[in-house]
Amino acid sequence: MRILLSISYLGTAYVGWQFQENGPSVQEAVEDALLKGTGDRIRVTGASRTDAGVHALCQMAHFDTASTIPPERFPFVLNRYLPPDIRVYFGQRVDDAFHARFDAERKTYTYRFFNAPHASAVWNAMTCHVPLPLDDRKMDTAVRSLLGEHDFCAFAAAGGQAKTTVRTLFEANVERQGPFVTFRVTGSGFLYNMVRIIAGTLIYIGQGKLSPDCFKTALATGDRLALGPTAPPGGLELSRIRYAARWELLEPPPYGDGVPVLK
Amino acid sequence: MRILLSISYLGTAYVGWQFQENGPSVQEAVEDALLKGTGDRIRVTGASRTDAGVHALCQMAHFDTASTIPPERFPFVLNRYLPPDIRVYFGQRVDDAFHARFDAERKTYTYRFFNAPHASAVWNAMTCHVPLPLDDRKMDTAVRSLLGEHDFCAFAAAGGQAKTTVRTLFEANVERQGPFVTFRVTGSGFLYNMVRIIAGTLIYIGQGKLSPDCFKTALATGDRLALGPTAPPGGLELSRIRYAARWELLEPPPYGDGVPVLK
Repeated sequence: MRILLSISYLGTAYVGWQFQENGPSVQEAVEDALLKGTGDRIRVTGASRTDAGVHALCQMAHFDTASTIPPERFPFVLNRYLPPDIRVYFGQRVDDAFHARFDAERKTYTYRFFNAPHASAVWNAMTCHVPLPLDDRKMDTAVRSLLGEHDFCAFAAAGGQAKTTVRTLFEANVERQGPFVTFRVTGSGFLYNMVRIIAGTLIYIGQGKLSPDCFKTALATGDRLALGPTAPPGGLELSRIRYAARWELLEPPPYGDGVPVLK
Repeated sequence: MRILLSISYLGTAYVGWQFQENGPSVQEAVEDALLKGTGDRIRVTGASRTDAGVHALCQMAHFDTASTIPPERFPFVLNRYLPPDIRVYFGQRVDDAFHARFDAERKTYTYRFFNAPHASAVWNAMTCHVPLPLDDRKMDTAVRSLLGEHDFCAFAAAGGQAKTTVRTLFEANVERQGPFVTFRVTGSGFLYNMVRIIAGTLIYIGQGKLSPDCFKTALATGDRLALGPTAPPGGLELSRIRYAARWELLEPPPYGDGVPVLK
């Protein structure tokens, strides 16, 4: 029986989703909890290999089991053994042919800047502090030039394993709510560090250090040097993954898709 | 010269605002930073003695100094020595007669429930997890019965030092945004554990374990047993403190008065 989990985590304490020798990974924590909950050592396949320090509101991961635990009970069983910064909040049975990574059709990422003279005491782990003022209108206009299908080869860090660098962005915008400047992007997929390279470039555009046209230049020339630095991981969150309707997935209950606003 | 600071902190790691022998306090951290920044050991007076684990978006605290550091530079000086879960985000000179605690006219507290089957991985430190469904409309109606001037003696834990138990509530409401149920209250002051006793009672009202009339009963009878349990500290945040206009205080810049919403 193949089970699909919806998993949320605060990435601060982890080397990333995927198992690594040099520190604790979210995948390892989930597999350890599965071992304690089912008695079996089971390999879990995540939809997205989030980097060290990157958060997830909703990572999706599947695994195969012969356990008699009902699919919807898995969150309760696993959360008993998981640390509080990792929560499984939904479980469902899926077709044996379904694959959490290969069948992902759209992914949404959120990158949060905290734009104030001093960093946030409360939101420090989930935001990237930018002390100098950001022109969010200019950032919003600039990032929309990335919409559509493009070759994003200039937007990839070395170390990626993608066969093609062509991707499609369906949604990209920047919005300010008080000191919070939020960049949200939905695409068919993303190259290694692509969202953080866009975020780092947006900082430079917002501060007038780079022209809003630099995205177009980078798309046309493929030149990484046309862009800004890679923004730090703590501001990034994997927010949503969508699959084709034919898989007939259940929608998880509301689970705190938190964007801070002034109130 | 008397300086007034606006201070934000994540209370999770602290025994509370006030200095205590049994662990690190926010006051101690600020005084240590002042010692490093000015060379002087200076006593800091906070407006509110927040409990262990309680957060502050905006604590106010004053101190006297002969330092030549300009008032508006104190945040930059102190943040160099403070841990990231404490940030001083505004500093201003105030009248020598001004007192952060005695001159506070209104305080606003926010209590956040995370109402979903599983706790939040991301918001765990700032919310109180309530797995059973809460009727937020019923909670909102009930809490408004506390508005106005009343004797809140039923709403105080033992250990308080208040001379009178009469307080005035100016604002009290409950609002839902997805799994976040937020209780916000503004009053002339609060008795020891008063906000957490109201919050704990709201959980019981929202789950139908107590009648929405229990607040009225407790006000009329003074009976602590008419109310629910004291809610845990992690859901509570000191959100705002207001002083009389005659002190001519400067308004700090926007600093992330974050209320999470579905987006």
